Amino acid sequence: MTDKLRSQINFLSEADKMKSVYRQTILTDRSREETDAEHSWHFALMAMTLFEYRGEKSVDLDRVIKMALVHDLVEIYAGDTFAYDTAGYADKDKRERAAADKLFALLPGEQARSYRALWDEFEQMKTPDAKYAGAIDRLQPFLNNHLTDGHTWVKHSVTEEQIYERMAPVREALPELWEFVEFVVGEYTGSI
Amino acid sequence: MTDKLRSQINFLSEADKMKSVYRQTILTDRSREETDAEHSWHFALMAMTLFEYRGEKSVDLDRVIKMALVHDLVEIYAGDTFAYDTAGYADKDKRERAAADKLFALLPGEQARSYRALWDEFEQMKTPDAKYAGAIDRLQPFLNNHLTDGHTWVKHSVTEEQIYERMAPVREALPELWEFVEFVVGEYTGSI
Repeated sequence: MTDKLRSQINFLSEADKMKSVYRQTILTDRSREETDAEHSWHFALMAMTLFEYRGEKSVDLDRVIKMALVHDLVEIYAGDTFAYDTAGYADKDKRERAAADKLFALLPGEQARSYRALWDEFEQMKTPDAKYAGAIDRLQPFLNNHLTDGHTWVKHSVTEEQIYERMAPVREALPELWEFVEFVVGEYTGSI
Repeated sequence: MTDKLRSQINFLSEADKMKSVYRQTILTDRSREETDAEHSWHFALMAMTLFEYRGEKSVDLDRVIKMALVHDLVEIYAGDTFAYDTAGYADKDKRERAAADKLFALLPGEQARSYRALWDEFEQMKTPDAKYAGAIDRLQPFLNNHLTDGHTWVKHSVTEEQIYERMAPVREALPELWEFVEFVVGEYTGSI
């Protein structure tokens, strides 16, 4: 077995820890919080299923799906930062960049660079692929909140304004989904 | 909101149940069994990371990743059948086909057909894409067993012969990984 293959297996072994990073979002059966691995899978499946609604026609679905697969790996070391946690967001970038330096370095050179580049692109949310990916990354927990009576919103007293701010990227990246966003937020604010 | 979009959101809501289908394989931190959603994500990441080792150069990674994302969805209705459960395998095909009929029908026509076709192709394990996908689908729990002292093998008294039979597709689909398979099996049989 080559050192290269050994390092790839080591990376894939470390990646298993994504199944132990718990998020704020709960499963629709309400049995527990979902993990980063589960979120990443659901995100990828949503990106694939809702692709026809992309606002920007040049989006490359295959690149978006790869972004979904790697976008949260850094949380193995940096932990999950709750979307509405202002204090946690203050040093999120710094913590995650340090985690990325450590994690992607497990891979052989060229592959490390390509995974890191995908992650950097996703984080910056500037290219059409990253904008679409970023919108789906927000739609996934939004859907689960909708299906669990706004579980994390209620728990953390999240306001209508905060949800709209968080969901804003959907308006450009998947314009036809905006009506769904408004419907869900309306239902939530009508119930509290 | 169109009926089409509504049906897609309904499918993506139903898909959340993949996070509640538990498998025999445990997480490397040994805290619990992994879920189908976690397995599907890990499978997709492994397919991407080990792609250079494919034996058949025509394999299309983007199709393989999509297969990974949808390959276990039927287990929402059919449940997980343990790889070494002979009785469970007797009616696995029938149960899973009925589940596929029910699940993919949630999607709009054309999308339902394309997801179903991907699943059928994966199940038949005949095309180069499906053979590569099938091999990775087996390598993922194999890696986790390796990292947990053969947890499910020990628990179910699985023999060396049974593991080699189960892992056989790796030999053709990822020839360079075969040495890893032999190493892991040797370590397991040396310890029991």
